[in-house]
Amino acid sequence: MTERLYLYDTTLRDGQQTQGVQFSTLEKQRIAGVLDDLGIDYIEGGWPGANPTDSAFFEDAPETRATLTAFGMTKRAGRSAANDEVLAGVLNARTPAVCLVGKTHDYHVTHALGITLEENLENIRASVAHLVAEGREALFDAEHFFDGWKDDAAYALACVTAAYEAGARWIVLCDTNGGTMPEEIAEIVGAVIASGIPGARLGIHCHDDTGQAVAGSLAAVRAGVRQVQGTLNGLGERCGNASLTTLIPTLLLKEPFAGTLETGVTAEALTGLRRASRLLDDILNRVPAKQAPYVGASAFAHKAGLHASAIAKAPQTYEHVEPGLVGNARIVPMSNQAGQSNLRARLAGMGLEVEAGDPALARILDGIKARETEGYAYDTAQASFELLAREELGLLPHYFDVQRYRVSIERRRGPRGEPLTLSEAVVVLEVGGERMLSVSESLSPEGADQGPVNALARALTKDMGPYQAAMEDWRLVDFKVRITGGGTQAVTRVIIDSEDGQGRLWSTVGVSPNIVDASFEALREAMLWKLVRDGVTAR
Amino acid sequence: MTERLYLYDTTLRDGQQTQGVQFSTLEKQRIAGVLDDLGIDYIEGGWPGANPTDSAFFEDAPETRATLTAFGMTKRAGRSAANDEVLAGVLNARTPAVCLVGKTHDYHVTHALGITLEENLENIRASVAHLVAEGREALFDAEHFFDGWKDDAAYALACVTAAYEAGARWIVLCDTNGGTMPEEIAEIVGAVIASGIPGARLGIHCHDDTGQAVAGSLAAVRAGVRQVQGTLNGLGERCGNASLTTLIPTLLLKEPFAGTLETGVTAEALTGLRRASRLLDDILNRVPAKQAPYVGASAFAHKAGLHASAIAKAPQTYEHVEPGLVGNARIVPMSNQAGQSNLRARLAGMGLEVEAGDPALARILDGIKARETEGYAYDTAQASFELLAREELGLLPHYFDVQRYRVSIERRRGPRGEPLTLSEAVVVLEVGGERMLSVSESLSPEGADQGPVNALARALTKDMGPYQAAMEDWRLVDFKVRITGGGTQAVTRVIIDSEDGQGRLWSTVGVSPNIVDASFEALREAMLWKLVRDGVTAR
Repeated sequence: MTERLYLYDTTLRDGQQTQGVQFSTLEKQRIAGVLDDLGIDYIEGGWPGANPTDSAFFEDAPETRATLTAFGMTKRAGRSAANDEVLAGVLNARTPAVCLVGKTHDYHVTHALGITLEENLENIRASVAHLVAEGREALFDAEHFFDGWKDDAAYALACVTAAYEAGARWIVLCDTNGGTMPEEIAEIVGAVIASGIPGARLGIHCHDDTGQAVAGSLAAVRAGVRQVQGTLNGLGERCGNASLTTLIPTLLLKEPFAGTLETGVTAEALTGLRRASRLLDDILNRVPAKQAPYVGASAFAHKAGLHASAIAKAPQTYEHVEPGLVGNARIVPMSNQAGQSNLRARLAGMGLEVEAGDPALARILDGIKARETEGYAYDTAQASFELLAREELGLLPHYFDVQRYRVSIERRRGPRGEPLTLSEAVVVLEVGGERMLSVSESLSPEGADQGPVNALARALTKDMGPYQAAMEDWRLVDFKVRITGGGTQAVTRVIIDSEDGQGRLWSTVGVSPNIVDASFEALREAMLWKLVRDGVTAR
Repeated sequence: MTERLYLYDTTLRDGQQTQGVQFSTLEKQRIAGVLDDLGIDYIEGGWPGANPTDSAFFEDAPETRATLTAFGMTKRAGRSAANDEVLAGVLNARTPAVCLVGKTHDYHVTHALGITLEENLENIRASVAHLVAEGREALFDAEHFFDGWKDDAAYALACVTAAYEAGARWIVLCDTNGGTMPEEIAEIVGAVIASGIPGARLGIHCHDDTGQAVAGSLAAVRAGVRQVQGTLNGLGERCGNASLTTLIPTLLLKEPFAGTLETGVTAEALTGLRRASRLLDDILNRVPAKQAPYVGASAFAHKAGLHASAIAKAPQTYEHVEPGLVGNARIVPMSNQAGQSNLRARLAGMGLEVEAGDPALARILDGIKARETEGYAYDTAQASFELLAREELGLLPHYFDVQRYRVSIERRRGPRGEPLTLSEAVVVLEVGGERMLSVSESLSPEGADQGPVNALARALTKDMGPYQAAMEDWRLVDFKVRITGGGTQAVTRVIIDSEDGQGRLWSTVGVSPNIVDASFEALREAMLWKLVRDGVTAR
């Protein structure tokens, strides 16, 4: 016997309140597609009428299995719901569902709105009734509900009861300031249900200001609410909203939720969760959070030597769920804490099966250790690790030599005295006995300097002869630099993240006292890894 | 009537299990200082004997008010505690407290360790007794305690009871795999206390694999434990440990914790929380998490128009705590009233007294804001901040112009085919109407390449004419690079730390898509600051 739990996503509305986030209409459409593929029940698309992007999104609304929802606020005092042009703007989006936010905290009614408590109740009642009369599914977001309850429980309850009695399908209890503890949320939700509004009509909307948005949402579900609001990757104002990316797998995989509640997310869709999370980061051009629960690159990474050897025997010893269920993968990174069992497991994950006791294993570990002493780091630079292992195993073809390179950076005054900076790189490669000389500038298509590493990357791949085709879809996505102690002096460590047309992501590392030289080494390894993984034959 | 709650930090041990994190001994010492200033009770420094960095840290252990703690594991079966060389290595660190991890989950005992359940109990008993006999404060980390309890509660309880009866000051219940729900944690903690181990002897250690490490820790505190383990900024294996950066303000500021529990963190130290969080990010060269509860740059940023206007009337309408309590600040578009008094205080700290209401204050704030949008950061780069303020206040002499520079980096084959890298910089300065042309290589006295930034720094200060004497004792001590989003494309931010013969330390920042150009800007500002502070007259 399972009960239905509904998932409501507000990435496109509350998620847009994130500092630095401003979606375009096209981005909103793409994100709606990602959410729909996951199996979210409601997609809140924005506030039509409040800004041009949101209006444009609804004008050309995507076809979704999910119920597309427009957001707005309850009518203002002193006019009827039908005559409120802000509310009319929301209804004009013609969505099947409409969610209106309204005040439920007495202080906000009298101080922020400056109206009477009775006027606010009437605004809620009339607005919800108007939605219902227009044939829409009505949702009421009870703003500051928990703070309001603690201040004046009777008034907060009167507000949500007004919405309920006026026919709202859902009354969503919002912890707008994000400061309520999960136990308080559970207690207050229990009291609301006891007052007569069934849990099947209640939702929860939490913010992460004490790092407990997920816990607060789950506490409300345990207490009986049957709708959970949140955003992908926890986007949202201040510290963010409850992350659906974290909530969904917990609801589907963990007790006491799994088996007692049912959502619209299938087990198959769940395996797309990591990809959905990455797609949002890609759209926003954000670096994915490595430590994100379930979907982060580190979420199933086992670094401690003790853990890694146990993992090799039985994964459940250090994993609370199977990583494949959310589309993630186990990582046993190399570091100076690791041993041979750790190493073999990692190599197997790269498709390199090595017998226990193979002397190459000791050579690989020694190589890693020696290079870590010099300042290299292989936790993230898995591709460089693979190349080092392939070298020791005799599985690395000899593709090319870099005979020499030269990079120059120049800054001078332009015609109007303005400073101009330009980088240039010359590279001489030897491929199958042939010398290839290439030169590239660092300029973007718009003429802006992109620095010496971009110039070098371009020159390196400008003419690779027989390998040219394989490198065409290679793209630098991130570049990290760290100054670190290596031996007697400071060295620069560069980690480069690459991507290709097949959606593969890989990281390589270079170390040198010279930052350009360290970048060169990481670029060279990025190219080698791509050639190996594409199965290109060496000339 | 308040009860004492103890805070135990494991940033230096469990935090080092974070993918990509590898502390040096010096970094460990600096982090220990940050923790001690905050008022943490216990600092776990690492596992002496397990790796050279940890051993070196304890050999030259910092003086702390906090109890420095060494970590290790219970003795192995088949030998006495006194004859276990791993345990001896831990004791040799001579710390007042020692924390030993041991198994409490029957499956792990029989499968991972391959010993009998009784042997494991004996290992716990004998190890803890040995610590006590050696005069140390003994802590027992009960690994996989909650999973173990769910599998075989009697055995898990027997393990922690063995540690308790052998004299452990603290028995720390660990949710090692991070998959236990807060409600389960509370229930199991309650059962342990009911069995006879008082809460004042129990600790909690949570991981964030379901995004509930903070909630789980707080649930355990409510259930009665009186020690909380965690890390700064939630560092740690996989998804991280419980973040002390989030837990501390919740425990100090929020009900039901505030007023009923007392920690070693004073209200004054709490105002240093944001800075402590940033210092750790600086040491690790990590981009600070904007959405981090309490300390994140966005934690008190109010973007929504409705919120911002209410905030202007009464801040508590959209804030659950006052941002200044944790050393953070409110960000509200179009209101910088609060900013001006902070700014004046900061300028006064640099010896620049500015009248309230001086229009330069608004210009400085606007300038900082505009440059932060471009990717600049002034938290650490105080010298660059001072130069920007001096410029607006008309207090920055015009010392020199850089007409142009050129840096080239070349890699080629040496006489025996070995790769050789060399950098060269040419700089043209104008000082008092005179052009000065200088060239420098990047070679150290031993002939090793030190990279393009060193070459540029040398060329810049090779011939400064009348300012030469002032720059003689300038030395670069550190160089940090971060790739950051600035406007439409990624830019490079370089922070340079400088030092002079008078022992002054100062930091400057440069931003550009080109890393050499960003370095140039930071070098130039480092030179300017030195000339200003040395009181050199401009020619």
